[in-house]
Amino acid sequence: MSLRPLSDRILVERVEEDEKTKGGIIIPDTAKEKPAEGKIVATGNGRMGEDGKLLPMDVKIGDRVLFSKYGGTDVKIDGIDYLILRQDDVLGVIE
Amino acid sequence: MSLRPLSDRILVERVEEDEKTKGGIIIPDTAKEKPAEGKIVATGNGRMGEDGKLLPMDVKIGDRVLFSKYGGTDVKIDGIDYLILRQDDVLGVIE
Amino acid sequence: MSLRPLSDRILVERVEEDEKTKGGIIIPDTAKEKPAEGKIVATGNGRMGEDGKLLPMDVKIGDRVLFSKYGGTDVKIDGIDYLILRQDDVLGVIE
Amino acid sequence: MSLRPLSDRILVERVEEDEKTKGGIIIPDTAKEKPAEGKIVATGNGRMGEDGKLLPMDVKIGDRVLFSKYGGTDVKIDGIDYLILRQDDVLGVIE
Amino acid sequence: MSLRPLSDRILVERVEEDEKTKGGIIIPDTAKEKPAEGKIVATGNGRMGEDGKLLPMDVKIGDRVLFSKYGGTDVKIDGIDYLILRQDDVLGVIE
Amino acid sequence: MSLRPLSDRILVERVEEDEKTKGGIIIPDTAKEKPAEGKIVATGNGRMGEDGKLLPMDVKIGDRVLFSKYGGTDVKIDGIDYLILRQDDVLGVIE
Amino acid sequence: MSLRPLSDRILVERVEEDEKTKGGIIIPDTAKEKPAEGKIVATGNGRMGEDGKLLPMDVKIGDRVLFSKYGGTDVKIDGIDYLILRQDDVLGVIE
Repeated sequence: MSLRPLSDRILVERVEEDEKTKGGIIIPDTAKEKPAEGKIVATGNGRMGEDGKLLPMDVKIGDRVLFSKYGGTDVKIDGIDYLILRQDDVLGVIE
Repeated sequence: MSLRPLSDRILVERVEEDEKTKGGIIIPDTAKEKPAEGKIVATGNGRMGEDGKLLPMDVKIGDRVLFSKYGGTDVKIDGIDYLILRQDDVLGVIE
Repeated sequence: MSLRPLSDRILVERVEEDEKTKGGIIIPDTAKEKPAEGKIVATGNGRMGEDGKLLPMDVKIGDRVLFSKYGGTDVKIDGIDYLILRQDDVLGVIE
Repeated sequence: MSLRPLSDRILVERVEEDEKTKGGIIIPDTAKEKPAEGKIVATGNGRMGEDGKLLPMDVKIGDRVLFSKYGGTDVKIDGIDYLILRQDDVLGVIE
Repeated sequence: MSLRPLSDRILVERVEEDEKTKGGIIIPDTAKEKPAEGKIVATGNGRMGEDGKLLPMDVKIGDRVLFSKYGGTDVKIDGIDYLILRQDDVLGVIE
Repeated sequence: MSLRPLSDRILVERVEEDEKTKGGIIIPDTAKEKPAEGKIVATGNGRMGEDGKLLPMDVKIGDRVLFSKYGGTDVKIDGIDYLILRQDDVLGVIE
Repeated sequence: MSLRPLSDRILVERVEEDEKTKGGIIIPDTAKEKPAEGKIVATGNGRMGEDGKLLPMDVKIGDRVLFSKYGGTDVKIDGIDYLILRQDDVLGVIE
């Protein structure tokens, strides 16, 4: 069973603390707007512009992303916790 | 008797708890913005763009969808409970 | 004496409780945003887009409609109660 | 002395209660958003679209109109009370 | 010394009470949103549309105008009081 | 060391009270929204429209301008006080 | 490990107080909206316009920038503090 996100939404699996790479990206506890880290497992086809054409997505399945923790909807599929986000909530891709 | 939703609205029949597939999508009680699950029974023709053309719908009759519980209007047709939503309230299609 | 609604407005005659079809659409008392039922007796020519062209209406005289009860203006013409609405307040057409 | 309204504004002379046609349009005292009745005595040339073209007016001098009582500016010209409104405040034309 | 207003702004000299024409436009003290009267002494070149073209002005130097008293900035040039307004604050031209 | 403002921003040097020309522009103390006077020392290339083209600036280096005191950011470069503004905060050019 | 910012976002390394050039840009303590100084270490590809084309960035890697301290998200990568900003939060480039 899987979920196809609509529009410019993505399905993100949270990255647990102990899975994070050493020396990698750390979000300081004192950060004003604390982002979270996750892996994209599904993406929508993109937002539809006013002329009916789809605006292509800038992220893809497998991308490790930092995203704003505001907005987003929690959902559990086959026992795993996911988050449904809009692409615009993604701050950047970890490379 | 049936209802033809206008614009990008859809008519959704809620999926009851005991009808949900085992091992399927679970919305945790602790979710900040708890989505709901339903089946699309009717769709509008799509929102009209500023140039007068209809923007095609991205969901169709029969789709099982997750949707945001905010917004939406309850209505009972021939004894069955439905919800009228805008397509943008649909987070994703369950496949 | 009649009223020609401007833009995408419609003139709606409310459907009284005892006129409603048996087994038809019922709006539950517990509905969060309770819609109302009515019959369209006049429509505007449509909203004007930014390029000066009229966006065609998606409803017509005689349509039975469900509409959001917020917005809208009450008016009595020749002793009958009507409501002036924008098309976007119409949730769907009863067929 | 006269006033040429700018953009999509209109100059409206209020219709007094005792001038109203019998059996005509009555605005119930209980109406949530009570409209008012008036006669258009001057109109602007229309709102300018983003491409610099004027969007044509949908009302003309002499039209009897119902309009929302919110918005609008009172002004007295040569001893007569008028109201300056935007066309979008006009709900419909009485015919 | 003079001031060239930018965009769709205009420079307006207020018309004092005793300069107003007899039998002319009077703004009742009871008016909800009381407009003011003035004479245009300078205008901008017009607002720039999204395509980089200037949208032409609908008022010119010398026009007597009614304008909304909200918004606008007071300024004194060579001892005379002026007001800097946007064209959209002008309700109409007195003719 | 200098600053290149981005987009439609400008860098403005405030004009001190004792540098102002006699008989020039005075902003009355009673003004509701008191503007300030300054000289432009740097400008951006203009705001980018939705089609990717730059909208040309309507002010240039050396212009004496009146600007709204709201918005804007104070900055000191090589010991001199400047203000970074958007062009839309400029009310007019003093000529 | 690095971060590719999405859309018109940039990754900025803050410039510490003791690294700032003498006689350079100083942000007064009394400034109403105090900007901060930083160096761009990564940029996105630009915001996507409504027609699906990318709007080119106006800053590049290596630029020293002043930016508004509101908005932005703190993140630490390989032990160094960064800030993720939108290009529109950049006031100007120090040259």
